[in-house]
Amino acid sequence: MRPFRQQLAICVAGLALLISPVRPAIAAEPTVEQWGIFEISLTGPTNGNPFLDVQFSGRFQLGDTNITADGFYDGAGVYRVRFMPEQPGRWQYATHSNVPELDGHTGEFTVTPPSANHHGPVRVCYTYHFAYADGTPYWPIGTTAYNWWHMAEPLEAETLATLADSPFNKIRMCVFPKHEPGQTNELALYPFEGTPPKGWDFSRFNPAFFQHLEQRVGDLRDLGIEADVILFDPYDKGRWGFDRMPPAVDDRYVRYLVSRLAAYRNVWWSLSNEYDFNKNKTEADWDRLFQVVAAADPYGHLRSIHNGFLIYNNAQPWVTHASIQNGSAVEDPGRAELYRDVWRKPVIYDEIKYEGNISKRWGNLSAQELVFRFWNATVAGTYATHGETLTNASGRLWTSDGGQLYGQSPARLAFLRRVLADSPAAGIDPIDKWQEVNLGGQPGEYYLLYFGKDPPAHWRFELPKFGLADGMKFKVDVLDTWNMTVTPVDGVFTVRKKDDYTFADEQGRDIPLPGRQWMALRIQRVH
Amino acid sequence: MRPFRQQLAICVAGLALLISPVRPAIAAEPTVEQWGIFEISLTGPTNGNPFLDVQFSGRFQLGDTNITADGFYDGAGVYRVRFMPEQPGRWQYATHSNVPELDGHTGEFTVTPPSANHHGPVRVCYTYHFAYADGTPYWPIGTTAYNWWHMAEPLEAETLATLADSPFNKIRMCVFPKHEPGQTNELALYPFEGTPPKGWDFSRFNPAFFQHLEQRVGDLRDLGIEADVILFDPYDKGRWGFDRMPPAVDDRYVRYLVSRLAAYRNVWWSLSNEYDFNKNKTEADWDRLFQVVAAADPYGHLRSIHNGFLIYNNAQPWVTHASIQNGSAVEDPGRAELYRDVWRKPVIYDEIKYEGNISKRWGNLSAQELVFRFWNATVAGTYATHGETLTNASGRLWTSDGGQLYGQSPARLAFLRRVLADSPAAGIDPIDKWQEVNLGGQPGEYYLLYFGKDPPAHWRFELPKFGLADGMKFKVDVLDTWNMTVTPVDGVFTVRKKDDYTFADEQGRDIPLPGRQWMALRIQRVH
Repeated sequence: MRPFRQQLAICVAGLALLISPVRPAIAAEPTVEQWGIFEISLTGPTNGNPFLDVQFSGRFQLGDTNITADGFYDGAGVYRVRFMPEQPGRWQYATHSNVPELDGHTGEFTVTPPSANHHGPVRVCYTYHFAYADGTPYWPIGTTAYNWWHMAEPLEAETLATLADSPFNKIRMCVFPKHEPGQTNELALYPFEGTPPKGWDFSRFNPAFFQHLEQRVGDLRDLGIEADVILFDPYDKGRWGFDRMPPAVDDRYVRYLVSRLAAYRNVWWSLSNEYDFNKNKTEADWDRLFQVVAAADPYGHLRSIHNGFLIYNNAQPWVTHASIQNGSAVEDPGRAELYRDVWRKPVIYDEIKYEGNISKRWGNLSAQELVFRFWNATVAGTYATHGETLTNASGRLWTSDGGQLYGQSPARLAFLRRVLADSPAAGIDPIDKWQEVNLGGQPGEYYLLYFGKDPPAHWRFELPKFGLADGMKFKVDVLDTWNMTVTPVDGVFTVRKKDDYTFADEQGRDIPLPGRQWMALRIQRVH
Repeated sequence: MRPFRQQLAICVAGLALLISPVRPAIAAEPTVEQWGIFEISLTGPTNGNPFLDVQFSGRFQLGDTNITADGFYDGAGVYRVRFMPEQPGRWQYATHSNVPELDGHTGEFTVTPPSANHHGPVRVCYTYHFAYADGTPYWPIGTTAYNWWHMAEPLEAETLATLADSPFNKIRMCVFPKHEPGQTNELALYPFEGTPPKGWDFSRFNPAFFQHLEQRVGDLRDLGIEADVILFDPYDKGRWGFDRMPPAVDDRYVRYLVSRLAAYRNVWWSLSNEYDFNKNKTEADWDRLFQVVAAADPYGHLRSIHNGFLIYNNAQPWVTHASIQNGSAVEDPGRAELYRDVWRKPVIYDEIKYEGNISKRWGNLSAQELVFRFWNATVAGTYATHGETLTNASGRLWTSDGGQLYGQSPARLAFLRRVLADSPAAGIDPIDKWQEVNLGGQPGEYYLLYFGKDPPAHWRFELPKFGLADGMKFKVDVLDTWNMTVTPVDGVFTVRKKDDYTFADEQGRDIPLPGRQWMALRIQRVH
């Protein structure tokens, strides 16, 4: 929770800078990093219903850039507006409100370049891929723990510690608590004022709920992890009724959430998990809610929606990337790549079944199979997301509650992440998409050839013609994606045109392979 | 070519009924079948440029139904307007024109129910499938002969005779002639007045070109074959310039074509072949051209566009079904089904490589491979289209010129067509789309299980739970899709729930299979 001790407190990523609203600070003018959080907090009315009655926003200006961010009521008479500056420089601000004591506050603050390891929010880049705002490539290696931040201590801290030691740079998490079958105990925090399970005043938010969410999103940010925040889900099952609120309440909730979280650079908006399993909303509702999010978010954080059986029309302009549940597409890169073309947007396979040992068919993949699916997604120019449903002594499943990871896949996904960290900034794309589906890269420069379940003993050095010319030279590494080894192949391979479609090593050489599964080749141009 | 011998001639599917415009016929009031062609022809001005100067349309009324069809100038002073009545009854018409002699002609005609084997135009039905307007299911088994109707006699007649003996009920054909590399001879007919290769007056159509096209579309109709008419293509290569006309000419051409052809019930509009290879048009052009077609066609004939590397946004409302070129999607039903979900429209894989023996990798599939792809498409709930590039004594390729078919796939596609003719009207849909990708049908009623390249020796009778209940009974046929045999399996199989996902034969029986490739099972409910 952020401190609020005076009429105007400006907090920068948790650091409170206290200035007077009527005599702007001169010596101690606040500073904030680019893509950090600049926060104005003011005290205002507590009578009536501040959530409904008070309009409050901030206008932030640097040169010709003007950005308006909605503020929000944070309880106990405190109103805040948060701002994520996307350019360095000396910014000015002014508050606007229908309440005199919140209106007309002005000031200046300085935005400094970001510190090391702080690259800004993630954006779509090169059509099918992602990069941080500073241009640093971002290769999603996500995981899923829908309910983790509702678990209270010590489990939440344990989850964070697990994540800190993991390869994961994104986590899918629901805002609303997930009702587990048979569960009757109530949680410490709910999003609305009232009495569980159903005695809610939907016109009054519970700030403590959102403060806790913000703390966790901030914790993830500090670990370098994107928070793929799921706004709605079908897992309430009517217990608390958050899955069947009136449209006006949905809209208000979305605007409130966005006004609180949008300044966190690591936030992504996932409109729903298994959206089509929400039987109380239509596709028109989702269209509308996407637009509410887009209108409320001044920064254009990534927006997606995750499907059950029915895939949303991801061609809609308010969808930044496809978030796909599909239990079979990533069994084959030739399947995985197909969704790219239809939307010309990045595709993240956010649910591909989980490494686990439960009886549900979505929860009993071997680690080998899950890692196989990640590699298929990779060479298809797409991305995959991890989940774990291994039952264990704790009785918890990571994918619901967080906690600890017991599986064998995370170490291999760390290996994949290291491979990606050395791959082209332009991303891995299919090279010859309808011919050689297990080959991705950038033509003429970089190739990943993944053999998956095949255990070849050798590979003839031949590549599709795209981007190639006689005399180009390449080096090769043999990657064992399960045993996590990289073995350089002796020699340099020089290509010559072989036929209308292919270039081959001019010496016609084979590359020896160990005859095991899960092998890949990395082929890189030698300049 | 349609006769025009008096001032007003009304032609019904080639039958001229001559009436006086000032004294409406009483005894000999014209009749036309439902979904036939009612045509009004009038003589009018020949001065100026009739294609640009004269507006001419017909308004057709039955009760509350009012339909306006654009007329067209057919040369030699003759103006026509054609109408495809979609309801039986006594219709009235009136002509409208900015030219007095074409304006204000009125009359009546009677539309009778359609004759046998005449089912009306094909529409989308059950989201992913097709049916004729009278409800009769239509299962596309198409072929491709882009240039066939530009080949003159005797080849065009030979093509029609070949089609009459084939399983094909759809053909893809380009309006514009296809330039073959090295070709320098000129054709008998071009769409515009002028001198080839480039001396065109784009403001004047050549009616004889379109009359010949109509004749061929009518010939196809009489054979029960849908004409998937391709409005634009990238195969001109600048020779005649039909691939790079100004947008206003494109629009006028489209409206003229549609005004002539829309009354043919067997017409489909394919906006382009390999649309993205037309380097002189943008995606916005295609959006516009789709809308020009839709606005000009009173009957809503099927509309699609066929891709090269870039897939069009088939979610657009003016696209009725996806027309896909993809050389690998139909290698695996798990790939083929993916496009269905993204657009929730029928998917026809209109180019899947061809049965052939040329060096191009798109033209050298074995017949077995092509038939395999059709069956994969089928169990995935989609459709495929045939092409043949077998070089032979004639030196022609069917897929360009038509002529004769030499391949082994058509007979097997005839077998597939017979199987489909006995399948549910609701179509073949994936039963458990992300689990058992080679199983299509209607849950609880009808299943096609295709083994493709696997040569199993037996199959354990187990089906996904959807639509099943304890005690349901099924009969089974073994289909050899290559040898074209149907072998009933002895006995009736009664299912019981086996686990959360599966029902199985209560006796746990296996069905013996011959251990060959290309086998399928047909499983049908016994009521």
